[in-house]
Amino acid sequence: MTPSPSTMTPPVAAPEPVDVSGLVVGILGGTGPQGRGLGVRLAAAGQRVLLGSRDAERSYATAEDVAARASTVAAGGVEVSVRGGSNSDVAESADLVIVAVPFGGHAATLAGLAAPLTGKIVVDCVVPMAFDKQGAYALPVPEGSVALQAAALLPGSSVVGAFHHLSAVLLEDLAHDLEGDVLVVGDDRQATDAVQALAARLPGMRGIYAGRLRSAGQVEALTVNLVSINRRYKVHAGVRITDV
Amino acid sequence: MTPSPSTMTPPVAAPEPVDVSGLVVGILGGTGPQGRGLGVRLAAAGQRVLLGSRDAERSYATAEDVAARASTVAAGGVEVSVRGGSNSDVAESADLVIVAVPFGGHAATLAGLAAPLTGKIVVDCVVPMAFDKQGAYALPVPEGSVALQAAALLPGSSVVGAFHHLSAVLLEDLAHDLEGDVLVVGDDRQATDAVQALAARLPGMRGIYAGRLRSAGQVEALTVNLVSINRRYKVHAGVRITDV
Repeated sequence: MTPSPSTMTPPVAAPEPVDVSGLVVGILGGTGPQGRGLGVRLAAAGQRVLLGSRDAERSYATAEDVAARASTVAAGGVEVSVRGGSNSDVAESADLVIVAVPFGGHAATLAGLAAPLTGKIVVDCVVPMAFDKQGAYALPVPEGSVALQAAALLPGSSVVGAFHHLSAVLLEDLAHDLEGDVLVVGDDRQATDAVQALAARLPGMRGIYAGRLRSAGQVEALTVNLVSINRRYKVHAGVRITDV
Repeated sequence: MTPSPSTMTPPVAAPEPVDVSGLVVGILGGTGPQGRGLGVRLAAAGQRVLLGSRDAERSYATAEDVAARASTVAAGGVEVSVRGGSNSDVAESADLVIVAVPFGGHAATLAGLAAPLTGKIVVDCVVPMAFDKQGAYALPVPEGSVALQAAALLPGSSVVGAFHHLSAVLLEDLAHDLEGDVLVVGDDRQATDAVQALAARLPGMRGIYAGRLRSAGQVEALTVNLVSINRRYKVHAGVRITDV
């Protein structure tokens, strides 16, 4: 029997496309390698980008450089827009904010920004990682994960974990196409849909919903394994999900 | 300047191939879905397999069934060999042992097998996972991970974590080709090399070294995210590492 339309399962594998092209994307820690890398790729795709830094002066020079590099690869007709500012200015002005600060400054940075980030999607890509003689290892986070720490500090924001596995080296190497999936974790469906759509704006990448925020810790820490893979195989490893 | 041979870096991305085809592979918990699935695929590839169970009687019937199914897909000339036994018999007789028991029985099973497993490679694929109304979630393990728990209980064995991300459904569906990578973590290079080679015996799969045993926890827990992906996209997700 053919099911009637009203009893059919909605096509979950192909959700309504979300248009995020008009969002201004702020990046806290936008002058670090991950922040610059995400910034240049998103700007080249036509996203308006604000690069935040503790030191606003430093951000202006980085923004100029990132804009210039994005312009070299942006498709014809794409308007490249990258501006700098303090982390706090960026949190205030952006529609959606990516957190790309070093783990050591994560809690302190977000603790001061709860008010400007209220009502916004906050995408945390910070990895709790350190190195010793044996290589990289995952640091414990009291809240269970960096993303859960962000959620605890930003009760008015929709916190999503994503963009952990993109090599900063490859992001900044504009001669190199990207390849792989962005695992997106979060509890707010509208927010995870938007972040999946944002990930898909990077050519070669997909945004894949990968569970609730309580499952962010292993996604963050998997970056440690990718670093070990990089060292062993002399590559810049990423992740692709099969069968999706 | 062309480096002289003595100063050249060894080709780490293409290690000496290890021949594991002669090893008898034991599977503790070999009558469960993951154990049966690994057993049938390894047997079809020509590996001699011992399926262990708490209930030896039950293992005999499973071994017969697994052997029959493996024979239907084994290439011409491949001798399919699958036998059953108690977990303790299997630990005693196998050259390399895969642990595929439920997490709830993990510590108790291994605690009784330290003697027969001494000197052997023990490959742990157990995932510390539970379910509630919101879906799958990772259970904390006092030792930090299931693999570290195994290492603590088996001081005389070389413990390796691997085979966490292979869908039991796809393993048992012999009409379906496998696709993806097996992430292999461990501290003993000979052991991880052997397990990578074992993974590569599964057509369509590669074994990728993915770090030390202290980085096993996130590999285990990532299975929770794959379960969430399966639910959202109606798939049987696995992992592929890009750029390797």
